[in-house]
Amino acid sequence: MATEILKVYGDRKSQPTRAILIFCKANGINFEEVEIKLFSGDAQTPEFQAINPLKKVPAISHGDFSLFESHAILTYLACWYQVSDHWYPTDLRKRAKIQCVLDWHHTTLRYGSTRYLINTVLAPVFGKSPNPEAAAEYEQKLVESFSTIETLWLKSDAKFLLGNDKPSVADLSLVCEIMQLHMISEEKRNRILGPYKKVQQWIENVKVAMDPHFDEVHQHLLDAIATFEQKP
Amino acid sequence: MATEILKVYGDRKSQPTRAILIFCKANGINFEEVEIKLFSGDAQTPEFQAINPLKKVPAISHGDFSLFESHAILTYLACWYQVSDHWYPTDLRKRAKIQCVLDWHHTTLRYGSTRYLINTVLAPVFGKSPNPEAAAEYEQKLVESFSTIETLWLKSDAKFLLGNDKPSVADLSLVCEIMQLHMISEEKRNRILGPYKKVQQWIENVKVAMDPHFDEVHQHLLDAIATFEQKP
Repeated sequence: MATEILKVYGDRKSQPTRAILIFCKANGINFEEVEIKLFSGDAQTPEFQAINPLKKVPAISHGDFSLFESHAILTYLACWYQVSDHWYPTDLRKRAKIQCVLDWHHTTLRYGSTRYLINTVLAPVFGKSPNPEAAAEYEQKLVESFSTIETLWLKSDAKFLLGNDKPSVADLSLVCEIMQLHMISEEKRNRILGPYKKVQQWIENVKVAMDPHFDEVHQHLLDAIATFEQKP
Repeated sequence: MATEILKVYGDRKSQPTRAILIFCKANGINFEEVEIKLFSGDAQTPEFQAINPLKKVPAISHGDFSLFESHAILTYLACWYQVSDHWYPTDLRKRAKIQCVLDWHHTTLRYGSTRYLINTVLAPVFGKSPNPEAAAEYEQKLVESFSTIETLWLKSDAKFLLGNDKPSVADLSLVCEIMQLHMISEEKRNRILGPYKKVQQWIENVKVAMDPHFDEVHQHLLDAIATFEQKP
């Protein structure tokens, strides 16, 4: 079974897609990347709907098995390929704490970040005008999330979340989310992230730990942003 | 270690609290229930903040280990107590599918349900007026969630999600969420849930499978709703 072909379907502009790609590369997992472009018809084809009937990226196929939801994918791959224990520990209590961070992510950091961007720079992509009132509300949610990361998940002096000296799937998932904020101006990003020095150091720690895969996988996002910013 | 005392902190009006209580009772797990009343000062005490610094229920303590986020708690307990495999299968692919449903829950059913209620019957609790426009938006999200459960997660004729003949932690978590809709009138509930016959049958299947614990744990919610409705 270990020789079944793994395909990762996604778009590198999608933060959970990037987390899966970096995870595979950092762990030497053989896979084929299948681009499913956001805002294109790629997710509407019968072929992709056989992988994810909800038509969203990221998703994987692994032989005749298919899966979506990035956290489920990351933990499945960590177990299937028996990667180094720090990614998703076999110890039940360490694993439970990582699941806690992953669950927390859905309703806090991810919730605030995606909605902040949709109500600011991404509004035109959805055919809407930026909504400063909604943006302020979600910026507040985002700031609260950074405060929780700084004071709770990074409360020790360890390099990674939960007092760990090596990264887990939670570090990777959260940092890929935060990288999405490169869509906004440096000034705004500093306003939001500036007060959180531990968060800034942790982002660097994750980048370094995943080198060179982190930068390579993120280059597409940064290029896309540069192109996007040149538009009138 | 298996003799460490398990305490479950929560309020039976909270849907994820109920899921954990029912899970423990259905599996004969010894635990102590510690009531942390919603909208009271219970979550603000130093004692509770030592369990969950984010001051939210549900949470558990298990000896000197503590944990929050209900999905992380359910999967931790399933593994720690080695309950019947159907709750959270050891088979990696079956387990991954359950994680997928749990992750999906956060951003769809739970997202729609809680915000629908906050913008309708629960608005006064948060010192706000009901917001019909927001309510319509979240009702739509809720309806989409039921459509996904009906056509994707229950697509076979099996009694439970994902084609299973026995319930998993995902069945329990989602049905406890849906039970929150008893806060709205039967007419409105029928409007939203009426078209989804498989979902209705599945809710019954989960209730029956958890009998008598499901009804016993939900009685407090139903009593609270009855009291709430009598208020002017």
